[in-house]
Amino acid sequence: MGRAPRYSLAMADAQRIIQPRTLKGFRDSLPVPMLAREELLSQVRGVFRAHGYCPFDTPALEYTEILLGKGSAESDRQMYRFTDNGGRDVALRFDLTVPLARFMAQHAGGLGVPFRGYHIGSVWRGENTQRGRYREFMQCDFDAIGTQSVVADVETLLVIHDLLDTLGVGEFTIRINSREVLGGVLETAGLSGESAPLLRALDKLDKIGREGVAAEMQAEAGVSAAQAERVLSLAELSGTAGDVLAGLAELVGEHEGGRRGLGRLGEIVAAAEAGGVVGSRLAVTPAIARGLDYYTGVVFETTLDDLPDIGSVCSGGRYDDLAGLYTKQRLPGVGASLGLDRLLAAMEELGQIQGRSTSAPVFMALFDEDRLHDYLSLAAELRRAGIGCEVHTEAKKLGAQLKYADRRGFQVALVIGGREWEAGVCQVKTLASGASAEFELKTLAADLARLLAELGAAQAGA
Amino acid sequence: MGRAPRYSLAMADAQRIIQPRTLKGFRDSLPVPMLAREELLSQVRGVFRAHGYCPFDTPALEYTEILLGKGSAESDRQMYRFTDNGGRDVALRFDLTVPLARFMAQHAGGLGVPFRGYHIGSVWRGENTQRGRYREFMQCDFDAIGTQSVVADVETLLVIHDLLDTLGVGEFTIRINSREVLGGVLETAGLSGESAPLLRALDKLDKIGREGVAAEMQAEAGVSAAQAERVLSLAELSGTAGDVLAGLAELVGEHEGGRRGLGRLGEIVAAAEAGGVVGSRLAVTPAIARGLDYYTGVVFETTLDDLPDIGSVCSGGRYDDLAGLYTKQRLPGVGASLGLDRLLAAMEELGQIQGRSTSAPVFMALFDEDRLHDYLSLAAELRRAGIGCEVHTEAKKLGAQLKYADRRGFQVALVIGGREWEAGVCQVKTLASGASAEFELKTLAADLARLLAELGAAQAGA
Repeated sequence: MGRAPRYSLAMADAQRIIQPRTLKGFRDSLPVPMLAREELLSQVRGVFRAHGYCPFDTPALEYTEILLGKGSAESDRQMYRFTDNGGRDVALRFDLTVPLARFMAQHAGGLGVPFRGYHIGSVWRGENTQRGRYREFMQCDFDAIGTQSVVADVETLLVIHDLLDTLGVGEFTIRINSREVLGGVLETAGLSGESAPLLRALDKLDKIGREGVAAEMQAEAGVSAAQAERVLSLAELSGTAGDVLAGLAELVGEHEGGRRGLGRLGEIVAAAEAGGVVGSRLAVTPAIARGLDYYTGVVFETTLDDLPDIGSVCSGGRYDDLAGLYTKQRLPGVGASLGLDRLLAAMEELGQIQGRSTSAPVFMALFDEDRLHDYLSLAAELRRAGIGCEVHTEAKKLGAQLKYADRRGFQVALVIGGREWEAGVCQVKTLASGASAEFELKTLAADLARLLAELGAAQAGA
Repeated sequence: MGRAPRYSLAMADAQRIIQPRTLKGFRDSLPVPMLAREELLSQVRGVFRAHGYCPFDTPALEYTEILLGKGSAESDRQMYRFTDNGGRDVALRFDLTVPLARFMAQHAGGLGVPFRGYHIGSVWRGENTQRGRYREFMQCDFDAIGTQSVVADVETLLVIHDLLDTLGVGEFTIRINSREVLGGVLETAGLSGESAPLLRALDKLDKIGREGVAAEMQAEAGVSAAQAERVLSLAELSGTAGDVLAGLAELVGEHEGGRRGLGRLGEIVAAAEAGGVVGSRLAVTPAIARGLDYYTGVVFETTLDDLPDIGSVCSGGRYDDLAGLYTKQRLPGVGASLGLDRLLAAMEELGQIQGRSTSAPVFMALFDEDRLHDYLSLAAELRRAGIGCEVHTEAKKLGAQLKYADRRGFQVALVIGGREWEAGVCQVKTLASGASAEFELKTLAADLARLLAELGAAQAGA
């Protein structure tokens, strides 16, 4: 596998330079954010795997028929849709949920259920690019499919918890609710016919406030002010998880589905602590609905305590039938989606991306070209000891080399000239502080490892 | 970030099932190959980083004008090209080389040069799908840009070596040559005007043999049989690297560019060993040209000794001017491309993907639902100790649970029933051998870690 000669770099025409630019709504990922993203993804994969979730992937391009399913005209407008050279009506995937449904319809037999999978990939939407939205972004979903067990609901909650706990973005709150309970409350209040507009309004509580929601409920669902109040009383419930569950029990009354949902919600909350969820991070929040049609059981959303305004960074819930459009096999399941780009933006805002701009920690100046073999041999020794090391390619003045090293974000620079080679020593410059020390070449790998560990600790403590 | 409610799973129409299928030339990645791919990519990133290469990425979609550059009509036909909803002529990237050129033209100023970057991503080509070719595949490129230093040539060779060494696909051979030397030999033979068809023919030596190449040279380049022989004498040079370099010195004679290229080739070969390249893995191979226009200096290709027929798994070389189509800044550099999909296919053929079908090694049977909190708490303890563990979601009969665990490829299953909970013990079943043992719950994490290490060793030795 190599590079095909179909593109002739030598044929550049000095008369005409093609302006280098990306499409509107698309962007390049530069090394500093890419390093942060790779680190994040590596941690995310670790958590998924620790809970038995396996990776899978689907193509970027699919038949439009598959992606559209029963989708609205809105989806249609947002899709990158075209006719390929074989005359097929195709489109770029606009989320990972529809491809998951198609994937499971096709492979559930071979994979067997229950199946725990995670799916990380880019999606494309020709959306309005205002408000920092991009037309290409990464999604990161995980699901347990083919199971109605409450244990799968609990595992989903545990994965959400462990993801946020591992990523180290400060304290967070996972809000949990049950669509069955919501349905029960509405039906008990005689409002089941209006549930769609009511839940849509209720979902906006954080954004438009109590008054706004009440007004929208009356306008959109045609309910009375008293009925709107009754639904809004859900949002009034507060206190410990136990208090909220007790309040919900009153609102649900004898409604069968509501009681069933409530029992299950209680089981999930009780099991969470046993599974390692820190109690203060879990909030039973009766007003969240997470969309209208998709979810049928437990629903989750997660906010960062330091940055609540960026919205949920991990949301999901239980659904009854994943792939009914593509198969007669009923596939219930539960899962969630991690908002990777949102989290990266949050980490940047919280100042947690600094100091990660280097892929290798050690820079080796090329001081004496005649000694190239010695530099290369020493660098190879460091790499064998697990210490990444870049040997500079240009034998420029030391000042210029160190400037390059500083700009690139290396942690330490090694300077070894004729005198040092003779004496078997090495000047080690810590780039952030400017501190310098002389290390023996014989024990360089071990001593550098110690210094880098100290610098890492200093950075983390800073 | 959650799942948008734009796709209604509940609205499936029993009257019409959309047949779940992927486009021709596209495929889903199932968990077993995905686990192997993720492992491979993680190792690949580790090697790139150890040499100071930083990750970056570019969009999947670009302006067609950018991607086409001065490309041929062939590129055009292979591209997924369409008009987006904003009326722009856009296309999916068909390689990572053109996006790299556009990226560097745009960002070289901000990033500074020399810049060492790696770029891993999918590309799309509407190619003929015969011969196991896919229309969506992953590329994995690395380059050092903005440098003419021989040290960058050496580093490229070291990265190729360390990649193959780390991935553990058996012994391999890196073939190295110089386009300057090739040019010198042709010019010395009075054939510089025909170099394009001659090199194209020479590149086919492995495929069509000596006779075939000689015939093609005469037919396509219009050279005499004696001249074809002279060029083919390049391929005759054999022996140690030193022997081949000496033979080349004779063929190149006094040609200035050829001598310069030869000197540089000698420097690279001499430095390689100092940098840790095992001598027997490097072969100076005067007949390889790696395409026509792209490369101007050293060129590399790499074959697996156990599977030479699959072709080169890592190829590249030095170029004079990366981004002349997009900028007046001259950007020389050197890099290569790892054939990830080809390597995965090779690993499969060599039987190196077996036994990696599990994301978590430990399966915990759900034997006694009333003890759910105890199972969850124990699983959380194992995960904190770094041992991935799936708690089964269905409290079925033990036989059915173990069958699931076996099918999914877990290494050990933990069975804990009422008696075991009381006694503080756990049945540990090794799934591959069927062996069973009783472990104390108190020391389970440590004892399991030991068992898993032993099983890993047994697998590796198998």
